[in-house]
Amino acid sequence: MKFPPLLLLLLMLNSHNILIAQKNNPTNFVSNRKIAIAIHGGAGNIKKRNLTPEQESAYLGVLDNALLSGYKALQEGKSSVDVVEIVIRLLEDSPLFNAGKGSVFSNEGKNEMDAAIMDGKTLHCGAVTNLTHVKNPISLAKAIMLDSQYVFLNGAGAEKFAKLKGIELVDTSYFFDQKRWNEMLKLRDTTKTILDNDRGQIEEKESISKFGTVGCVILDMYGNLAAGTSTGGITNKRYNRIGDSPVIGSGTYANNKTCAISCTGHGEDFMRIVAAHQVHSYMFFSKMSLRKSAENVIMKELTQLGGRGGLIGVDRKGNITFQFNTNGMFRAGINCKGEKTLSIYK
Amino acid sequence: MKFPPLLLLLLMLNSHNILIAQKNNPTNFVSNRKIAIAIHGGAGNIKKRNLTPEQESAYLGVLDNALLSGYKALQEGKSSVDVVEIVIRLLEDSPLFNAGKGSVFSNEGKNEMDAAIMDGKTLHCGAVTNLTHVKNPISLAKAIMLDSQYVFLNGAGAEKFAKLKGIELVDTSYFFDQKRWNEMLKLRDTTKTILDNDRGQIEEKESISKFGTVGCVILDMYGNLAAGTSTGGITNKRYNRIGDSPVIGSGTYANNKTCAISCTGHGEDFMRIVAAHQVHSYMFFSKMSLRKSAENVIMKELTQLGGRGGLIGVDRKGNITFQFNTNGMFRAGINCKGEKTLSIYK
Repeated sequence: MKFPPLLLLLLMLNSHNILIAQKNNPTNFVSNRKIAIAIHGGAGNIKKRNLTPEQESAYLGVLDNALLSGYKALQEGKSSVDVVEIVIRLLEDSPLFNAGKGSVFSNEGKNEMDAAIMDGKTLHCGAVTNLTHVKNPISLAKAIMLDSQYVFLNGAGAEKFAKLKGIELVDTSYFFDQKRWNEMLKLRDTTKTILDNDRGQIEEKESISKFGTVGCVILDMYGNLAAGTSTGGITNKRYNRIGDSPVIGSGTYANNKTCAISCTGHGEDFMRIVAAHQVHSYMFFSKMSLRKSAENVIMKELTQLGGRGGLIGVDRKGNITFQFNTNGMFRAGINCKGEKTLSIYK
Repeated sequence: MKFPPLLLLLLMLNSHNILIAQKNNPTNFVSNRKIAIAIHGGAGNIKKRNLTPEQESAYLGVLDNALLSGYKALQEGKSSVDVVEIVIRLLEDSPLFNAGKGSVFSNEGKNEMDAAIMDGKTLHCGAVTNLTHVKNPISLAKAIMLDSQYVFLNGAGAEKFAKLKGIELVDTSYFFDQKRWNEMLKLRDTTKTILDNDRGQIEEKESISKFGTVGCVILDMYGNLAAGTSTGGITNKRYNRIGDSPVIGSGTYANNKTCAISCTGHGEDFMRIVAAHQVHSYMFFSKMSLRKSAENVIMKELTQLGGRGGLIGVDRKGNITFQFNTNGMFRAGINCKGEKTLSIYK
């Protein structure tokens, strides 16, 4: 695609439209398409009174850094899939969020991590569950998407593939965090006599912990969408539980025809309503807006089931949305107009 | 619900409408609702010339027995979820199909089984992956749905839960089958030098094996839908691969508003299009028929991605459908009019 010099100048003067020769793009494609980014660090019972000003500032700092790093990469012409990985790696490396370094402990005292990534252009996707040694689960999900015949790999097998592909593995001690450990012990002690099928009671106890899954959705300058999610799951989870994050369609979904979505919250209910794909379906079949579609899924469908959580989304025009029915969601974004969001509470 | 004697007589004379006092239903609900059942034993490169008359007869015999057992249970008033379990257990217990007893071997020489079940009335669901000791994976999926706070459990953790719930565990030797073992060895030898990302070549080699996943979808006399799927996955699979069968929305989905669906085939592509939920979406948003919706998903969306396989579906009116883009699908069903299907080839 070539532009006459005057048009080129005009386009460059429009600060919201990005026009850069693509060093990193193998096709050297030049574009004036809009870009947009949204990220989350989990939704849950997050109230202002529960965070000190220092904690609040720390969370916002990590979110803002991840946001701006992702936005810069987009401006430089990186692809949606690459930017999802860049952003989520930053959040995984922070001990503040429940993914990678900050993952919560299972009932057995392990960090069991899940992640998924999806490319809205090709519908290729990669997902992993029950990882215990992979420093950045999102990078393994991406390697599965790009370099294997599979979509979804598990535990020891997934880590064997990681080793083959040169994905960084670490000792389990890397994930140890005293605060997370104490949270798990407290929850394990309070729930150990509660039966498995006594869902209401368990959920009440679980509300003292939070769902700190991280996620990122991107529209890049080539018009391509991508979504990614990474999580340590729910504190004190048992029986090698898998949540919605790595389940394509439930916790993570991207399709250039409509939107890219990443969910966070009580994963079981997101799986029951196939939440991320349901946002796509509202948009695709009913021609509903991203915001309205996401609102229907979270405020109506999830809430009607008694589920709690939220989601972030971006559409192909560069609109972004944040929907949640909890007290808060760690979130940040920059839409196609350059409007920035950086927020925690309702 | 009470009926005057004459109406009662008329209803009883209509052999396609079932009217039986419910021994097995705790509410003693009496109904004249229609019933329907569809089952599959996998779709793949199944041609008449590849099966001897004895083999053909054996496959049809097991399918017919499972079909009639399920239909009888429905007539007796059993719930959709219970009938899905009854039917799939029979298929899992047969060495002919790639689920339970007949599961294929992974590259590491293990039987790694996945299953899922979903209740269309409540949207409750249960799923399991990477089982190695559970005789009937579908029963564990049902126990997770009914007796845990979780939806999706994995491997050793899932089997720990199975033990707690009295689900039958067996020695891995129970799953050994010389023919399956030889299939895996043959495939392992022919593909061992092929790179992971060389998808085309691997798929060509894989076509000598078949995808024998089993599934069942039900409309019971109370108007409730349910779906279930159980599988040993793909012969010679590596890295603890998870397919679409246990992924709610992709391989298995049920919703009383529309349909119950069970898929079979190259699972990766079913996950990319969230196939089962997509059939629901066509019906729910576009008011399309079950048949047309299923046809769109298999013949258009799956085929466009280069994916191969099929699905079975039942809607809330008791229509059933069988869609596949392969040479055959082991299949059987009885729709609400009492019309029976029992077939293998295209």
